[in-house]
Amino acid sequence: MLSFENDYSCAAAPEILAALNETQAEQFPGYGSDRLCASAKARIRTACDAPDADVWFLVGGTQTNQTVIDAITPPYAGVIAATSGHVNVHEAGAIEASGHKVLTLPQHNGRIDADELDRYCATFYADANYEHMVFPGAVYISQCTEYGTMYAKAELERIADVAHRHGMPLFVDGARLGYALTAKGNDVSLADLARIADVFYIGGTKVGALFGEAVVFTHHGSLSNTPRHFLTLIKQHGALLAKGWLLGLQFDTLFTDDLYLRIARRANVAAERIREALTDRGYTLTFDAPTNQIFITVDKATRARLESRVRLGFMEQADADHDVIRICTSWSTTDEQVDQLLDLL
Amino acid sequence: MLSFENDYSCAAAPEILAALNETQAEQFPGYGSDRLCASAKARIRTACDAPDADVWFLVGGTQTNQTVIDAITPPYAGVIAATSGHVNVHEAGAIEASGHKVLTLPQHNGRIDADELDRYCATFYADANYEHMVFPGAVYISQCTEYGTMYAKAELERIADVAHRHGMPLFVDGARLGYALTAKGNDVSLADLARIADVFYIGGTKVGALFGEAVVFTHHGSLSNTPRHFLTLIKQHGALLAKGWLLGLQFDTLFTDDLYLRIARRANVAAERIREALTDRGYTLTFDAPTNQIFITVDKATRARLESRVRLGFMEQADADHDVIRICTSWSTTDEQVDQLLDLL
Amino acid sequence: MLSFENDYSCAAAPEILAALNETQAEQFPGYGSDRLCASAKARIRTACDAPDADVWFLVGGTQTNQTVIDAITPPYAGVIAATSGHVNVHEAGAIEASGHKVLTLPQHNGRIDADELDRYCATFYADANYEHMVFPGAVYISQCTEYGTMYAKAELERIADVAHRHGMPLFVDGARLGYALTAKGNDVSLADLARIADVFYIGGTKVGALFGEAVVFTHHGSLSNTPRHFLTLIKQHGALLAKGWLLGLQFDTLFTDDLYLRIARRANVAAERIREALTDRGYTLTFDAPTNQIFITVDKATRARLESRVRLGFMEQADADHDVIRICTSWSTTDEQVDQLLDLL
Amino acid sequence: MLSFENDYSCAAAPEILAALNETQAEQFPGYGSDRLCASAKARIRTACDAPDADVWFLVGGTQTNQTVIDAITPPYAGVIAATSGHVNVHEAGAIEASGHKVLTLPQHNGRIDADELDRYCATFYADANYEHMVFPGAVYISQCTEYGTMYAKAELERIADVAHRHGMPLFVDGARLGYALTAKGNDVSLADLARIADVFYIGGTKVGALFGEAVVFTHHGSLSNTPRHFLTLIKQHGALLAKGWLLGLQFDTLFTDDLYLRIARRANVAAERIREALTDRGYTLTFDAPTNQIFITVDKATRARLESRVRLGFMEQADADHDVIRICTSWSTTDEQVDQLLDLL
Repeated sequence: MLSFENDYSCAAAPEILAALNETQAEQFPGYGSDRLCASAKARIRTACDAPDADVWFLVGGTQTNQTVIDAITPPYAGVIAATSGHVNVHEAGAIEASGHKVLTLPQHNGRIDADELDRYCATFYADANYEHMVFPGAVYISQCTEYGTMYAKAELERIADVAHRHGMPLFVDGARLGYALTAKGNDVSLADLARIADVFYIGGTKVGALFGEAVVFTHHGSLSNTPRHFLTLIKQHGALLAKGWLLGLQFDTLFTDDLYLRIARRANVAAERIREALTDRGYTLTFDAPTNQIFITVDKATRARLESRVRLGFMEQADADHDVIRICTSWSTTDEQVDQLLDLL
Repeated sequence: MLSFENDYSCAAAPEILAALNETQAEQFPGYGSDRLCASAKARIRTACDAPDADVWFLVGGTQTNQTVIDAITPPYAGVIAATSGHVNVHEAGAIEASGHKVLTLPQHNGRIDADELDRYCATFYADANYEHMVFPGAVYISQCTEYGTMYAKAELERIADVAHRHGMPLFVDGARLGYALTAKGNDVSLADLARIADVFYIGGTKVGALFGEAVVFTHHGSLSNTPRHFLTLIKQHGALLAKGWLLGLQFDTLFTDDLYLRIARRANVAAERIREALTDRGYTLTFDAPTNQIFITVDKATRARLESRVRLGFMEQADADHDVIRICTSWSTTDEQVDQLLDLL
Repeated sequence: MLSFENDYSCAAAPEILAALNETQAEQFPGYGSDRLCASAKARIRTACDAPDADVWFLVGGTQTNQTVIDAITPPYAGVIAATSGHVNVHEAGAIEASGHKVLTLPQHNGRIDADELDRYCATFYADANYEHMVFPGAVYISQCTEYGTMYAKAELERIADVAHRHGMPLFVDGARLGYALTAKGNDVSLADLARIADVFYIGGTKVGALFGEAVVFTHHGSLSNTPRHFLTLIKQHGALLAKGWLLGLQFDTLFTDDLYLRIARRANVAAERIREALTDRGYTLTFDAPTNQIFITVDKATRARLESRVRLGFMEQADADHDVIRICTSWSTTDEQVDQLLDLL
Repeated sequence: MLSFENDYSCAAAPEILAALNETQAEQFPGYGSDRLCASAKARIRTACDAPDADVWFLVGGTQTNQTVIDAITPPYAGVIAATSGHVNVHEAGAIEASGHKVLTLPQHNGRIDADELDRYCATFYADANYEHMVFPGAVYISQCTEYGTMYAKAELERIADVAHRHGMPLFVDGARLGYALTAKGNDVSLADLARIADVFYIGGTKVGALFGEAVVFTHHGSLSNTPRHFLTLIKQHGALLAKGWLLGLQFDTLFTDDLYLRIARRANVAAERIREALTDRGYTLTFDAPTNQIFITVDKATRARLESRVRLGFMEQADADHDVIRICTSWSTTDEQVDQLLDLL
């Protein structure tokens, strides 16, 4: 059946499989100490215009969030996230399992607000009992968000500013970063992100890799902010891949000739076509979002009709009569698949 | 200075100190395996009309919440609590430090609502992605609540019913249980609690003991619901008192001749006098609550005036011009102290 | 440079890459709910002669050990392992990070002894203070062991018997299981393992897969011993692969036409040639072991000479003048590589 | 029955009960922010000749070990202890429950050896795979040890020196510190300890208090080594006593007129009498130790005879025919009790 269920349903960009096929007979040292990881890191530093950034490769998103947040959040503190943040909702308690509370802020179409963040911290420190409470210790946001929306550069700068004023690093979950970087209206480049955030990751799993997330600690060298013995922390979280070069190979390929951006853009173009069709035909877009995830609020009959012909994601019940469902394009979505979908709408 | 700051500012009921003085020369075996603990447990079982209940003594409230919740909540699950619940707000992340998320429901004057609890669970299990989420694994409520309010018996029964229907035990934090049991309008006895809840504790620290909380697992014997090797779990949480008989001695005394209820009642009587005076003089009571904690919403000038003459607790800013402050009576509050306070209001 | 450094230095068996290339355009549902996982599970159940076994796929060894041990070990208990066990030495504290102590038994060429295990438990329960101690809660062994040695079937049965008598499940780390199954003198089949152990895993990362470990809970169906909501526990440990079918694809391929055993056997044949040459030339084999890891005790000069020509693993200093180094063959070792190595010895 | 079972079987020194009786009507602020805690801290700083030391009061030993070790040991590290160390054997896995491995060194009559500590660390950092292992992150020793033995000042200095050279703080468990400070042959004063160790605690529970341990971080002021937000960490571990002044009151009393040392000395004098009698009568002392714990190796018949007349502690089976049992004196042991015991031996 036609599927617009998610952006991780196909294997990988052909360039990655080609690179994999080519290295089949080669022997690599383990755990990321290989030439492909070195090359991929160099390319990512260049793409981020951050020659001192420290780059690490992990396998998946929840794993990366758990490992990074546990490493950057003090033991007396929690991590601030939107109520809709992936770490708060869809990671089976991975953050709490490593000992930290997720402190929530209201979500505004998936985004947190810098003023509300500031007020949260001000209220916390003004509370006479704050030493009996969980300190705000780090800020987690997603770009693009779980609802497909994005932060503008000025918003990111304000959030980072507030976070830093209250002694917190800003961590950006970029599981779908490619789709944000290439969305219409986006004004945040990789270099901006490396300048503004303290740590972020470039998602591979959902943007053309078999798997893999590239974590970037942005203040390396004399200002390194990589947690001490981070390799050991990765290992302790069960997140160190023996054949680390497989991650290096994929990111080396994705960051050659802008492959990462080129394939991500495809998903946005496809989403744009679908959004236009949906609007033309009177569908209700749940969020005003420019990336590869389209949420629509439909009645039960429409949902049933669509789901009988195409695999989609169910998000939540909107009210007794309506559901929110997701149409998700990806780097692998073809024009033909979009045509087929448009025929069904 | 006069103090109505909290209910744990005085040492202990004279009867407890007397008992302590009397046992000064006696040698007891350690860790709760002594005659005083045995006697206290028997008295508590009788008071609860629960001959098969399993009773344990711990030192403090946060410690008890952490140890019990960690023991009764499955590893894939969190504990449901009101947003205002002590475990959610004022325990420095003790629950999360032991690996469990606190899943919050709206608070209604400190209480959760059985229907909202039901809806929360129904929504959870209806979510196509629930296996990626934190399961609801136990329900935590406080009697009386953090705002001095109480659950009626019928409400407790409904909450227990919903909890059990979704496979969760109901845990009642009774840090201030004495004040609930003796409040005007209360219809919940210890026996009711032992029948309705799966585990609860009888607070000593705030009701006349030097320290100590008596945990009651209500289905002992052939139906025991005490977590396996609970003594070891207590030890592992750093919560096993070497001189366990000190806890036995205190609860044995508190449950002799109804001392626990008698001293708790005193605090409610004092609070009642204060509430009447406050109402007479036009103060705004923040909550309609019958126990020993009185919250008033006052303007800044009133707050400053009061705090210059009596130690009170600050709760939170109500708005730009008003604060919520707490007047707390206790088992040790004297008529003279109340008189002095009324002169100041 | 020639490398006998480890058994995870090459990508994957050609059959796996071929399968991957073929599915490039196909869309799969996520998280292991796909046809390839279903097929791979069926093949593994057949290979184990265990129609009711419950099979799960994880990415790496440390991750699998952490997730399984945390799930099968009670909260008041630790996991018993040889002092040389991977979980005790080389997992950066992953077991302790999830809250469990590793309780160690002496290693005998990498193996634990059933009688010592029995004595350990008997001594534990005979200790008057055992409730203040960490209970023995699960038994961890490796087949083949970290030193390349193996357990005979009768030994495994005795260990399982002792474990069960003391209420513990037996967990077998099979990161290199293929090399044990195909070693000279081995008498333990997959079906034996599924009958004897409570849970074990079939290592892919070191035996021809890009990555992946297949966990087998052996008493499924009415006797299922899979931990409750194991999918959620996997997710919580950051171990749930989005593109789960990549794991299914690999194990489906490995368990087609005995590929897993065929490629594993190759490593043992190569190791056998090397061991014979080493013996002929007077080298000291550190352990008497029949699988793909060969440890030799050499003087510093010999070590330096060898390491200048071939990448090997360093294990430890034997004494002031001697080191133990490892020559590791793998499923990908060629006759030419062995020839080259023999020229260098 | 006569009891020499342990040193925590009696309530508290009469001076402490007297002080408690006197403060019965007084109201104190909570959580240690009271005048008695302030006074006790000042007295302890004076006794330690450490005007900048930072003093905290906790309730019990396991709780203190768990809270301090978790706070001073980096997340990628474990704590080094003797195999016989309390944290390794008798705390039900409290250290591992907070995420840290206990790394063991051989015990020599309960003590670790500075050279072995040095070798352990040197070997660790020389291991090519050390980043996959648990770092040595802190050193835990007990003074006196679990076997009643002591470290001489020169040994402590060497251990501290080695620990610091490898970047680790030295933590001294002083649950029975009073008995060490007043033992025959002791050359380590409180001031020495405050100079040599990074953090230690002065045990109250086993030396005359109802309960309580005073933790001393020794480099306060501009060199403070107190973990950040330590109050919050205490709370998070369930270890913050609401009526903190009860701890202040006890330590204030114990450190007035040298009460702590005076009552501790009594236990040693009693133990000395018993040891002499034991030697005279041909008993085998298991350890050569000068403090209040006496271990004797006896045959089964002797053990049975003694235990029928006096409560003693069982330590372990020495061999098939012999057991090690403990005779423990305390601050409360009277001459009459010793006379009675000598009659029984």
